[in-house]
Amino acid sequence: MAYASEGEFKRDATYIPDRITKDARRPEHGPVDGELWPVEAGRYRLVAAKACPWATRTIIVRELLGLEDVISLGTPGPTHDERSWTFDLDPGGVDPVLGIERIQEAYLERFPDYPRGITVPAIVDVPTGQVVTNDFPWITHDFFFEWREFHRADAPNLWPAELREEMEQVMRRIYTEVNNGVYRCGFAGSQEAYDAAYDRLWTALDWLEERLASRRYLMGDALTEADVRLWTTLARFDAVYHGHFKCNRQKLTELPHLWGYARELYAIPAFGGNTDFEQIKRHYYVVHSDINPTQVVPKGPDPAVWLEPHGRG
Amino acid sequence: MAYASEGEFKRDATYIPDRITKDARRPEHGPVDGELWPVEAGRYRLVAAKACPWATRTIIVRELLGLEDVISLGTPGPTHDERSWTFDLDPGGVDPVLGIERIQEAYLERFPDYPRGITVPAIVDVPTGQVVTNDFPWITHDFFFEWREFHRADAPNLWPAELREEMEQVMRRIYTEVNNGVYRCGFAGSQEAYDAAYDRLWTALDWLEERLASRRYLMGDALTEADVRLWTTLARFDAVYHGHFKCNRQKLTELPHLWGYARELYAIPAFGGNTDFEQIKRHYYVVHSDINPTQVVPKGPDPAVWLEPHGRG
Repeated sequence: MAYASEGEFKRDATYIPDRITKDARRPEHGPVDGELWPVEAGRYRLVAAKACPWATRTIIVRELLGLEDVISLGTPGPTHDERSWTFDLDPGGVDPVLGIERIQEAYLERFPDYPRGITVPAIVDVPTGQVVTNDFPWITHDFFFEWREFHRADAPNLWPAELREEMEQVMRRIYTEVNNGVYRCGFAGSQEAYDAAYDRLWTALDWLEERLASRRYLMGDALTEADVRLWTTLARFDAVYHGHFKCNRQKLTELPHLWGYARELYAIPAFGGNTDFEQIKRHYYVVHSDINPTQVVPKGPDPAVWLEPHGRG
Repeated sequence: MAYASEGEFKRDATYIPDRITKDARRPEHGPVDGELWPVEAGRYRLVAAKACPWATRTIIVRELLGLEDVISLGTPGPTHDERSWTFDLDPGGVDPVLGIERIQEAYLERFPDYPRGITVPAIVDVPTGQVVTNDFPWITHDFFFEWREFHRADAPNLWPAELREEMEQVMRRIYTEVNNGVYRCGFAGSQEAYDAAYDRLWTALDWLEERLASRRYLMGDALTEADVRLWTTLARFDAVYHGHFKCNRQKLTELPHLWGYARELYAIPAFGGNTDFEQIKRHYYVVHSDINPTQVVPKGPDPAVWLEPHGRG
């Protein structure tokens, strides 16, 4: 963790900027700050822990677009040590495709002195065992724009061109105020930093609650990438952020529009089927021993509420 | 804190067993394991922090019975150091009647080598500055049975004779399973101890939820001491125990009968008027640095919900 002045948590947001594009051509959108790798069925393995919100985005988009047969998935377990994520859920503690015990090995295979955090999601080039990228916002973006030839026929249009400008604004606010906002509360290094982080988070959640009062999805009638990005925070809210990160003005279940929206998303297999509340809780409560020294994992809340009818027309 | 085998929290329940009775006579109920002191208007000072659930019982009963003019009240602030509770909220940090900075002084005035925890509530003999008793279940009991001559005319019958046997059973279960049950969750020294404590607590809360489905108060149509004893845990439930002690199957607000009942009690001045959510939160989150190392105090939950109509006929 890194702290700015006065105890505010700051995320290190520098990732390996490589991208995988069709024929390794310059992509239609976004920066090219690293190398370009070609789209190729079966060549890459997505490594993504179901506990991690940033990783879960990629698992969901891969499934929404029907890319399961062309990009394989390796799933580290919920906890990790100082060398980060391990394949402890796999037989023998080894990823069956990459043959490694920890994702760190794929980072070091490419960059022997890799100086930054070992994070998921990461895409690994299976033939060389080298990490390609861990730049999560572009991973899901490129799944949509660069892997189109492999999408299933009825894949949702996660990036409608006519909404892109507004969607970028909405997603930027969700990223800084909500996805990161919960961490800003939980890792605040002072009461003042926490108080400011809490107010900032709830200002954003009030905005979203109002936005969803008159919209089925964040951008209107259809599911987009913006919903995936908000979802991973909502899914963890009552299970972790409410108590562990002290984001406790209300539970998600007490915000009627956000809660109906979240249950509607949960009912979609790519969302609900990739939500593992036990892994989510174990990750945060065990890994963050600095804020939960006992590492005891709460038994609540009761996840049965997720199956209650959402009542949205 | 003390731990039994396998990480279960055990409360040290040995207190100064002295009692204050009418004319220092043998009391009608209960043991006489210490000295007897005579009831006398103006002689004693109740020292009770509003943060502390055990202390708050005595504040509430004193007010319900109208004893404010005969037993004065000193109120330590919400936090304390290794020497326990201090009068940091009073001008100069000194209790204006006892002239001391910390309740520890009254304990040492009587027992220079006092070996146990310095706890509130404590009753102090004002002329000598010596602690009389800190045996909280008998303090409220004796306020009712021994100070009758000073009760206000319309004081509630907190101990109806015909209900006493059942009430003792209910109060015992509330003490071991709920009042102490939340601490057993929060101070569990292992995942196994916590899991067992959580199940035990929720078994009891489900029993209470069902009991209050068909009763206005715990013992029927009228308020009793049993309600006071349950109340102090309910008042702290969402503010502290739900997150800090991981009692998070549901919030109190999600248990309809207990929540309606709790709001009905909150509307009674002796209950609501002596409930200070800010002091309550500061106490637990600052004092228990072993489970909350940052000592950051959550801003939530929003206490406005306590004022919503309880809808109980």
